Amino acid sequence: MKSKISRIANDHRRKAIGVFDSGIGGLTVAKEIFKLLPNEDVVYFGDTGRYPYGPRSPEVVKRFSRQDVNFLLEQGVKYIVVACNTASSLALGYIQRIYNIPMLGVIEPGARGAIEKTVTKRIGVIGTQGTINSLAYEKALRNFSGSLQIISKACPLFVALAEEGYIDQPATRLIAQDYLTELKKKNIDTLILGCTHYPLLKQPIASIMGEKVKLVDSAEETAKATRKALIDLDLLSTSQTAGKRKFFVSDTPEKFKKIGELFLGQKIGKVGLVDINSY
Amino acid sequence: MKSKISRIANDHRRKAIGVFDSGIGGLTVAKEIFKLLPNEDVVYFGDTGRYPYGPRSPEVVKRFSRQDVNFLLEQGVKYIVVACNTASSLALGYIQRIYNIPMLGVIEPGARGAIEKTVTKRIGVIGTQGTINSLAYEKALRNFSGSLQIISKACPLFVALAEEGYIDQPATRLIAQDYLTELKKKNIDTLILGCTHYPLLKQPIASIMGEKVKLVDSAEETAKATRKALIDLDLLSTSQTAGKRKFFVSDTPEKFKKIGELFLGQKIGKVGLVDINSY
Repeated sequence: MKSKISRIANDHRRKAIGVFDSGIGGLTVAKEIFKLLPNEDVVYFGDTGRYPYGPRSPEVVKRFSRQDVNFLLEQGVKYIVVACNTASSLALGYIQRIYNIPMLGVIEPGARGAIEKTVTKRIGVIGTQGTINSLAYEKALRNFSGSLQIISKACPLFVALAEEGYIDQPATRLIAQDYLTELKKKNIDTLILGCTHYPLLKQPIASIMGEKVKLVDSAEETAKATRKALIDLDLLSTSQTAGKRKFFVSDTPEKFKKIGELFLGQKIGKVGLVDINSY
Repeated sequence: MKSKISRIANDHRRKAIGVFDSGIGGLTVAKEIFKLLPNEDVVYFGDTGRYPYGPRSPEVVKRFSRQDVNFLLEQGVKYIVVACNTASSLALGYIQRIYNIPMLGVIEPGARGAIEKTVTKRIGVIGTQGTINSLAYEKALRNFSGSLQIISKACPLFVALAEEGYIDQPATRLIAQDYLTELKKKNIDTLILGCTHYPLLKQPIASIMGEKVKLVDSAEETAKATRKALIDLDLLSTSQTAGKRKFFVSDTPEKFKKIGELFLGQKIGKVGLVDINSY
């Protein structure tokens, strides 16, 4: 009897981690999960057919997120990572109430990472307009500590710049200066990169903020938090071999493959096409 | 009997012009229509819930365009303007075959405008990656004349810059230089602004291209072509009073109102919310 239970538990542990994002940005989170949990199977869904989530209303983001979760559940995942700041801030609470599967977003791990790093308790947050307007990072930070100075700034052009490979160009530096100069003056010691695309712009952001400001990469923090959650829930895979990775999108799989390989720095195999509106 | 026929014809002429776009960009076309045809009623639909169309596959753009047309037909329009370069290049032929209502896209008028302006027969085209990849302007230009030199260039960051109001900033000039320097070297005498957002960036584009290069604004040309088509089809409104304008979107009406007023340079009244997936 005991061996049957442990076999069932083992089968459950061997299920994949499900990761979803509005498109390609969540691959920065997937990349860190691959690095930290190399033996885990991962199913990634990028909602490229309805990208971006940032400008959509909360109702629409909730409906989309629910469909994304339905697809991942059909894939038989054991755990879900919402690798999208917009969905994490607008829909995570909603889908957590509906589904009986453990989930994690990118906001709470990012906030925790900042709390661990700050000394002066002066924390900056940058993200898309939607994420900044939602005050999601502020709320998450204040859950950890009441005595913080939080300065937020939307950097809407960063996503387009990252996707176009505008990383080292002088124009990117000028735009980053426009966005960050005020934050720099506020003497923060920690800055949360509150958008999955922003890790690609770490270098220009760091060079403007200076070496005294610690950058918190939500993707790294989310991978760490995923590992911790899997251990706590006794869901860590016992496999000794490299995990399998599956990728699905709701439109333009070839384009996802091409840009995705740049994001991941490694090959992506076949990319499946999903009719997400039917979920 | 005659008076009844002419009354029916008059009723038909008094119907609105339907205009649709993937979101807000088509307002540059609507603005020119308002200017040139002030007595016409206009119904504008911006598909903000599924914006942008640029990165989507042709199949998806066709499906979306069909739903957009269904909505406008329900509004009882007499003529449809596809004020979106992506939908014009990927879906116009398809929806023209399906529906029995006269339609116009932005590509053919833009191409015609360039043909009228060029002397050296060296024409440049700039647009989103999707529009440039579709070769839609090349095909339309070659329909007018076989002996042309056409040089195309995708300027993917221009849409984000225009929407963020990055018009006069040095960063915009640097990015425009990156995109346009090669075009300038090719000695074109005419440049088609093949994206509905680009008229907002006319100034930085013109200052890099120099005064010898004539810019063709697809929005202006499309309004002119609409007027000509209405005259040819005997559909011009006989009303002597200012036309009514109605605006509908598929998500975030408040945001559309706010940014839309900047695009139009005038007030937008109520913005209706449409469940476009049900069309």
